[in-house]
Amino acid sequence: MHVDHAGIATTDTDSLVFLFEDLLEADVVHEELLDGMEIVFLDIGGDYLELIEPTADEGAIASYLEENGPGIHHLAFATDDIGAALQRAEDRGVDLIDSEPRPGAWGHEVAFCHPKSTGGVLVEFVEH
Amino acid sequence: MHVDHAGIATTDTDSLVFLFEDLLEADVVHEELLDGMEIVFLDIGGDYLELIEPTADEGAIASYLEENGPGIHHLAFATDDIGAALQRAEDRGVDLIDSEPRPGAWGHEVAFCHPKSTGGVLVEFVEH
Repeated sequence: MHVDHAGIATTDTDSLVFLFEDLLEADVVHEELLDGMEIVFLDIGGDYLELIEPTADEGAIASYLEENGPGIHHLAFATDDIGAALQRAEDRGVDLIDSEPRPGAWGHEVAFCHPKSTGGVLVEFVEH
Repeated sequence: MHVDHAGIATTDTDSLVFLFEDLLEADVVHEELLDGMEIVFLDIGGDYLELIEPTADEGAIASYLEENGPGIHHLAFATDDIGAALQRAEDRGVDLIDSEPRPGAWGHEVAFCHPKSTGGVLVEFVEH
Protein backbone atom coordinates (compact mmCIF):
# COMPACT_ATOMS: atom_id res chain seq x y z
CA MET A 1 0.00 0.00 0.00
CA HIS A 2 1.17 3.56 -0.58
CA VAL A 3 -0.13 7.12 -0.23
CA ASP A 4 -2.05 7.91 -3.43
CA HIS A 5 -3.44 11.37 -2.80
CA ALA A 6 -4.82 13.90 -0.36
CA GLY A 7 -8.30 15.17 -1.19
CA ILE A 8 -8.85 18.92 -0.79
CA ALA A 9 -12.36 20.39 -0.55
CA THR A 10 -12.45 23.80 -2.21
CA THR A 11 -14.84 26.48 -3.44
CA ASP A 12 -12.32 27.85 -5.95
CA THR A 13 -10.51 25.16 -7.92
CA ASP A 14 -9.14 27.56 -10.54
CA SER A 15 -7.33 29.78 -8.01
CA LEU A 16 -5.96 26.79 -6.12
CA VAL A 17 -4.66 25.15 -9.31
CA PHE A 18 -3.01 28.44 -10.30
CA LEU A 19 -1.37 28.74 -6.85
CA PHE A 20 -0.27 25.11 -6.47
CA GLU A 21 1.21 24.93 -9.99
CA ASP A 22 3.69 27.55 -8.86
CA LEU A 23 3.97 26.99 -5.09
CA LEU A 24 4.17 23.18 -5.16
CA GLU A 25 5.47 22.64 -8.72
CA ALA A 26 2.23 20.76 -9.42
CA ASP A 27 0.92 19.68 -12.84
CA VAL A 28 -2.74 19.11 -13.74
CA VAL A 29 -3.00 15.50 -14.92
CA HIS A 30 -6.75 14.82 -14.84
CA GLU A 31 -10.01 16.81 -14.81
CA GLU A 32 -13.49 15.40 -14.47
CA LEU A 33 -17.09 16.19 -13.57
CA LEU A 34 -18.46 13.43 -11.31
CA ASP A 35 -21.67 13.27 -9.28
CA GLY A 36 -22.06 17.03 -8.84
CA MET A 37 -18.35 17.66 -8.25
CA GLU A 38 -15.60 19.25 -10.32
CA ILE A 39 -12.48 17.17 -9.72
CA VAL A 40 -8.88 18.06 -10.63
CA PHE A 41 -5.89 15.83 -9.94
CA LEU A 42 -2.52 17.52 -9.56
CA ASP A 43 0.71 15.53 -9.83
CA ILE A 44 3.39 16.60 -7.35
CA GLY A 45 6.50 14.49 -7.80
CA GLY A 46 4.53 11.31 -8.42
CA ASP A 47 1.91 11.74 -5.67
CA TYR A 48 -1.40 13.50 -6.19
CA LEU A 49 -3.62 16.15 -4.76
CA GLU A 50 -7.32 15.82 -5.65
CA LEU A 51 -9.12 19.16 -5.65
CA ILE A 52 -12.88 18.73 -5.24
CA GLU A 53 -15.39 21.54 -5.77
CA PRO A 54 -19.14 20.99 -5.54
CA THR A 55 -21.15 22.06 -8.58
CA ALA A 56 -24.43 21.45 -6.73
CA ASP A 57 -25.77 22.70 -3.38
CA GLU A 58 -26.07 19.19 -1.95
CA GLY A 59 -23.70 16.28 -1.53
CA ALA A 60 -20.90 15.17 0.81
CA ILE A 61 -18.39 17.85 -0.21
CA ALA A 62 -20.95 20.69 -0.13
CA SER A 63 -21.93 19.59 3.39
CA TYR A 64 -18.28 19.32 4.42
CA LEU A 65 -17.54 22.84 3.17
CA GLU A 66 -20.56 24.26 4.95
CA GLU A 67 -19.47 22.68 8.22
CA ASN A 68 -15.69 23.02 8.04
CA GLY A 69 -14.79 25.45 5.27
CA PRO A 70 -12.19 24.55 2.62
CA GLY A 71 -9.24 22.32 3.49
CA ILE A 72 -7.92 18.77 3.64
CA HIS A 73 -10.85 16.36 3.32
CA HIS A 74 -9.37 12.86 3.09
CA LEU A 75 -6.28 10.72 2.56
CA ALA A 76 -6.28 8.00 -0.07
CA PHE A 77 -4.10 4.90 0.01
CA ALA A 78 -3.49 2.85 -3.12
CA THR A 79 -3.75 -0.92 -3.01
CA ASP A 80 -3.71 -3.58 -5.71
CA ASP A 81 -6.42 -5.52 -3.84
CA ILE A 82 -9.14 -3.23 -2.50
CA GLY A 83 -11.28 -6.21 -1.50
CA ALA A 84 -8.53 -7.49 0.80
CA ALA A 85 -8.02 -3.98 2.26
CA LEU A 86 -11.75 -3.76 3.08
CA GLN A 87 -11.71 -7.24 4.61
CA ARG A 88 -8.74 -6.29 6.79
CA ALA A 89 -10.55 -3.12 7.88
CA GLU A 90 -13.69 -5.08 8.71
CA ASP A 91 -11.67 -7.67 10.65
CA ARG A 92 -10.22 -4.82 12.73
CA GLY A 93 -13.70 -3.48 13.53
CA VAL A 94 -13.31 -0.38 11.37
CA ASP A 95 -16.67 1.18 10.48
CA LEU A 96 -16.93 1.19 6.67
CA ILE A 97 -18.73 3.89 4.67
CA ASP A 98 -18.47 1.60 1.62
CA SER A 99 -18.63 -2.11 2.38
CA GLU A 100 -18.01 -2.81 -1.32
CA PRO A 101 -15.72 -0.95 -3.75
CA ARG A 102 -17.52 1.55 -6.00
CA PRO A 103 -16.48 3.51 -9.09
CA GLY A 104 -14.66 6.72 -8.12
CA ALA A 105 -12.88 9.51 -9.97
CA TRP A 106 -10.41 8.79 -12.78
CA GLY A 107 -11.97 5.36 -13.38
CA HIS A 108 -10.60 3.93 -10.13
CA GLU A 109 -12.34 1.66 -7.64
CA VAL A 110 -12.69 3.35 -4.24
CA ALA A 111 -14.05 2.69 -0.75
CA PHE A 112 -14.05 4.91 2.35
CA CYS A 113 -13.68 4.10 6.06
CA HIS A 114 -15.55 6.17 8.64
CA PRO A 115 -13.20 8.67 10.32
CA LYS A 116 -14.60 7.87 13.77
CA SER A 117 -12.84 4.47 13.43
CA THR A 118 -9.56 5.85 12.08
CA GLY A 119 -8.45 8.63 14.40
CA GLY A 120 -10.57 11.34 12.75
CA VAL A 121 -8.92 10.68 9.37
CA LEU A 122 -11.26 9.98 6.45
CA VAL A 123 -9.37 7.05 4.87
CA GLU A 124 -9.99 6.10 1.24
CA PHE A 125 -8.74 2.90 -0.34
CA VAL A 126 -8.18 3.20 -4.08
CA GLU A 127 -7.33 0.57 -6.66
CA HIS A 128 -6.16 1.91 -10.03
CA MET B 1 8.95 18.96 -4.96
CA HIS B 2 7.04 15.91 -3.77
CA VAL B 3 4.56 14.96 -1.07
CA ASP B 4 6.57 14.11 2.04
CA HIS B 5 3.91 13.41 4.65
CA ALA B 6 0.49 14.15 6.06
CA GLY B 7 0.48 15.26 9.69
CA ILE B 8 -2.23 13.74 11.90
CA ALA B 9 -3.19 15.32 15.24
CA THR B 10 -4.12 12.61 17.72
CA THR B 11 -4.80 12.03 21.40
CA ASP B 12 -3.91 8.34 21.18
CA THR B 13 -0.76 7.65 19.18
CA ASP B 14 -0.41 4.06 20.41
CA SER B 15 -3.85 2.95 19.19
CA LEU B 16 -3.42 4.72 15.87
CA VAL B 17 0.00 3.14 15.27
CA PHE B 18 -1.46 -0.28 16.11
CA LEU B 19 -4.37 0.29 13.68
CA PHE B 20 -2.36 1.79 10.80
CA GLU B 21 0.36 -0.89 10.97
CA ASP B 22 -2.33 -3.38 9.99
CA LEU B 23 -4.84 -1.29 8.02
CA LEU B 24 -2.32 0.67 5.92
CA GLU B 25 0.65 -1.72 6.06
CA ALA B 26 2.58 1.06 7.80
CA ASP B 27 5.94 0.75 9.58
CA VAL B 28 7.18 2.97 12.41
CA VAL B 29 10.43 4.54 11.21
CA HIS B 30 10.98 7.39 13.67
CA GLU B 31 9.84 8.40 17.16
CA GLU B 32 10.69 11.61 18.95
CA LEU B 33 9.68 13.98 21.74
CA LEU B 34 9.83 17.58 20.47
CA ASP B 35 8.54 20.80 22.04
CA GLY B 36 5.78 19.18 24.10
CA MET B 37 4.74 16.74 21.38
CA GLU B 38 5.14 12.99 20.94
CA ILE B 39 5.88 12.43 17.25
CA VAL B 40 5.82 9.15 15.33
CA PHE B 41 6.58 8.81 11.63
CA LEU B 42 5.03 5.87 9.79
CA ASP B 43 6.35 4.75 6.40
CA ILE B 44 3.64 3.70 3.96
CA GLY B 45 5.18 2.62 0.68
CA GLY B 46 7.82 5.37 0.75
CA ASP B 47 5.58 8.24 1.90
CA TYR B 48 5.02 9.14 5.54
CA LEU B 49 2.32 9.85 8.04
CA GLU B 50 3.40 11.96 11.02
CA LEU B 51 1.32 11.27 14.13
CA ILE B 52 1.49 14.16 16.60
CA GLU B 53 0.20 13.94 20.18
CA PRO B 54 0.58 16.80 22.65
CA THR B 55 2.29 15.93 25.93
CA ALA B 56 1.43 19.35 27.40
CA ASP B 57 -1.84 21.26 27.74
CA GLU B 58 -0.64 24.14 25.58
CA GLY B 59 0.79 24.47 22.11
CA ALA B 60 -0.40 24.48 18.50
CA ILE B 61 -1.50 20.83 18.36
CA ALA B 62 -3.26 20.93 21.76
CA SER B 63 -5.18 24.01 20.54
CA TYR B 64 -5.97 22.33 17.23
CA LEU B 65 -7.34 19.24 18.98
CA GLU B 66 -9.45 21.33 21.33
CA GLU B 67 -10.98 23.21 18.40
CA ASN B 68 -11.25 20.46 15.77
CA GLY B 69 -10.76 17.10 17.41
CA PRO B 70 -8.30 14.54 16.02
CA GLY B 71 -7.67 14.33 12.27
CA ILE B 72 -5.54 15.52 9.38
CA HIS B 73 -3.59 18.60 10.48
CA HIS B 74 -1.22 19.48 7.63
CA LEU B 75 0.40 18.38 4.38
CA ALA B 76 4.17 18.54 3.99
CA PHE B 77 6.00 18.90 0.68
CA ALA B 78 9.68 18.01 0.39
CA THR B 79 12.05 20.34 -1.41
CA ASP B 80 15.82 20.40 -1.76
CA ASP B 81 15.80 24.21 -1.44
CA ILE B 82 13.43 25.39 1.29
CA GLY B 83 14.71 28.97 0.97
CA ALA B 84 13.65 29.07 -2.68
CA ALA B 85 10.25 27.55 -1.81
CA LEU B 86 9.67 30.27 0.81
CA GLN B 87 10.76 32.98 -1.61
CA ARG B 88 8.34 31.65 -4.24
CA ALA B 89 5.55 31.63 -1.65
CA GLU B 90 6.36 35.20 -0.60
CA ASP B 91 6.44 36.33 -4.24
CA ARG B 92 2.95 34.88 -4.66
CA GLY B 93 1.64 36.80 -1.64
CA VAL B 94 1.26 33.70 0.52
CA ASP B 95 1.10 34.54 4.24
CA LEU B 96 4.00 32.74 5.92
CA ILE B 97 3.88 31.36 9.46
CA ASP B 98 7.65 30.89 9.28
CA SER B 99 9.49 33.45 7.18
CA GLU B 100 12.72 31.52 7.80
CA PRO B 101 13.24 27.73 7.97
CA ARG B 102 13.43 26.34 11.51
CA PRO B 103 14.47 22.97 12.94
CA GLY B 104 11.55 20.50 12.84
CA ALA B 105 11.05 16.84 13.66
CA TRP B 106 13.53 14.17 12.52
CA GLY B 107 16.30 16.80 12.15
CA HIS B 108 14.67 18.39 9.10
CA GLU B 109 14.33 22.07 8.27
CA VAL B 110 10.69 23.12 8.08
CA ALA B 111 8.52 26.18 7.41
CA PHE B 112 4.73 26.55 7.36
CA CYS B 113 2.42 28.69 5.21
CA HIS B 114 -0.79 30.09 6.70
CA PRO B 115 -3.82 28.04 5.54
CA LYS B 116 -5.84 31.20 4.83
CA SER B 117 -3.48 31.77 1.86
CA THR B 118 -3.51 28.18 0.61
CA GLY B 119 -7.13 27.10 0.30
CA GLY B 120 -7.53 26.11 3.96
CA VAL B 121 -4.61 23.65 3.70
CA LEU B 122 -1.83 24.05 6.25
CA VAL B 123 1.18 23.63 3.91
CA GLU B 124 4.59 22.68 5.32
CA PHE B 125 7.80 22.84 3.33
CA VAL B 126 10.41 20.37 4.52
CA GLU B 127 14.05 19.94 3.54
CA HIS B 128 15.67 16.69 4.64
